[in-house]
Amino acid sequence: MENFVEIVCVGNELLIGKIANTNAQWLAKRITTLGLKVRRVTVIGDDVGEIAAAIRESLERKPSFIITTGGLGPTFDDKTLEGIATALNCELEQNDEALKMIEETYQRYVAEGRMEKFELSPHRVKMAKLPKGAKPICNPVGTAPGVLAEHEETLLIMLPGVPQEMEAIFDESVASLIREVAGDLTFYEVSIEVRGIPESDLAPVIDEVMRDNPYVYVKSHPKMSEKVPHLELHLSTTSEDANLARQRVSRGLIQMSETIQKKGGKIKPIET
Amino acid sequence: MENFVEIVCVGNELLIGKIANTNAQWLAKRITTLGLKVRRVTVIGDDVGEIAAAIRESLERKPSFIITTGGLGPTFDDKTLEGIATALNCELEQNDEALKMIEETYQRYVAEGRMEKFELSPHRVKMAKLPKGAKPICNPVGTAPGVLAEHEETLLIMLPGVPQEMEAIFDESVASLIREVAGDLTFYEVSIEVRGIPESDLAPVIDEVMRDNPYVYVKSHPKMSEKVPHLELHLSTTSEDANLARQRVSRGLIQMSETIQKKGGKIKPIET
Repeated sequence: MENFVEIVCVGNELLIGKIANTNAQWLAKRITTLGLKVRRVTVIGDDVGEIAAAIRESLERKPSFIITTGGLGPTFDDKTLEGIATALNCELEQNDEALKMIEETYQRYVAEGRMEKFELSPHRVKMAKLPKGAKPICNPVGTAPGVLAEHEETLLIMLPGVPQEMEAIFDESVASLIREVAGDLTFYEVSIEVRGIPESDLAPVIDEVMRDNPYVYVKSHPKMSEKVPHLELHLSTTSEDANLARQRVSRGLIQMSETIQKKGGKIKPIET
Repeated sequence: MENFVEIVCVGNELLIGKIANTNAQWLAKRITTLGLKVRRVTVIGDDVGEIAAAIRESLERKPSFIITTGGLGPTFDDKTLEGIATALNCELEQNDEALKMIEETYQRYVAEGRMEKFELSPHRVKMAKLPKGAKPICNPVGTAPGVLAEHEETLLIMLPGVPQEMEAIFDESVASLIREVAGDLTFYEVSIEVRGIPESDLAPVIDEVMRDNPYVYVKSHPKMSEKVPHLELHLSTTSEDANLARQRVSRGLIQMSETIQKKGGKIKPIET
């Protein structure tokens, strides 16, 4: 069974369209580059029942990792840890290591003159109440620690919703865990822009290139047409051998380019 | 039971982080404004089994609408209709009305000089193969029709992945269906920027405002702090009476502002 990752994003702001889910995009890109496949992204609101249901459903698919974003902060609507505890049938427990991390961050804020003083109010202590058995992960740029929990063969990793905090914790503490599971797999991709051929006329060409290049996945992304048909073709592959991956994609690209030019289409590369 | 909507986005490009899911954001914002709640967004890849599983799971939660994006085009990896048919245990069937829509669009392209000629190739006919009993929805700006299917009390609406096409079909043919179910409900929101108070010190203020204003939902969005703590507070409510909605949010906002200013915080409004 192939190793894969699921992403679960928590936040009403995503469900009312207040913001785009850039966290999911950032994580998906990073995880793909590290060599693992993201199989599903689920977005739910700040609700313990919804979070617990989404996590339980995800656990049933037996991913190597479930990575959540959002809901770790001090306010009443930060409910991710309670949702995870419910899904794992365990209690929330004050974690001394997490509390120490939180305390040290606020002490640093005071030392840097960003706050006058601080107390460990109940709202701050809340961020140290983790599902029993879970471990905090250091947040180098914010107050709420990330959290790591295990369930059968799945590692659950809870990250904050503030993009800079999420990204910093991922790069510092999560990427290495993913790389370990991915092994030497690398993802290689190339994109080209094609003008002058409608997608429905390219469809048989894509079929042919994929038949002749069994390891290469080709996806067409039609762009809104002005007068001239216009689309992006994305060729990608995953392999343990980076050179082989590049060769496979290049071979597919050459075949594709030749056929498109024969049909009168215009091509140029796009940065991925 | 409250009426709600689920959004299911299909596309490998979303799972490799190639693009942000702006379609989900656009739909969520529009649906919220029309008065219905989006309960979940699910993103899966171009795979019949994954699509069918996500749709079946969504149907079990009994939403009023499931809106899908992506996977309606002419290429091999456009698999949404096959996934829906699998989920609904029915066959794909060539739909004459859909085929006529597709034919007319290409005829128009030829008349406008955007194509020299066209034939109804198998890849073009593919876009007219709908789950049995489903109906095509006119696509005013592209070739693949939207699709409408029913299952028990859920309306399934399949939209293309190209944003302009998805938006045009939604505005022309879907918004009215949602408004009908939403009735007179309206969503009202206000956002303010707060500087100078850490989120963990605002948490008890938010608790208080929400206790005193039971219909108003307050959510804090911490921004990455420079030296000064900095966050956004978002107050919202849904009501059948637009005036009442505005009054309720305004009352919450006034109470919130007074307390924040007493604590030395600085406030300014943000456009939503």
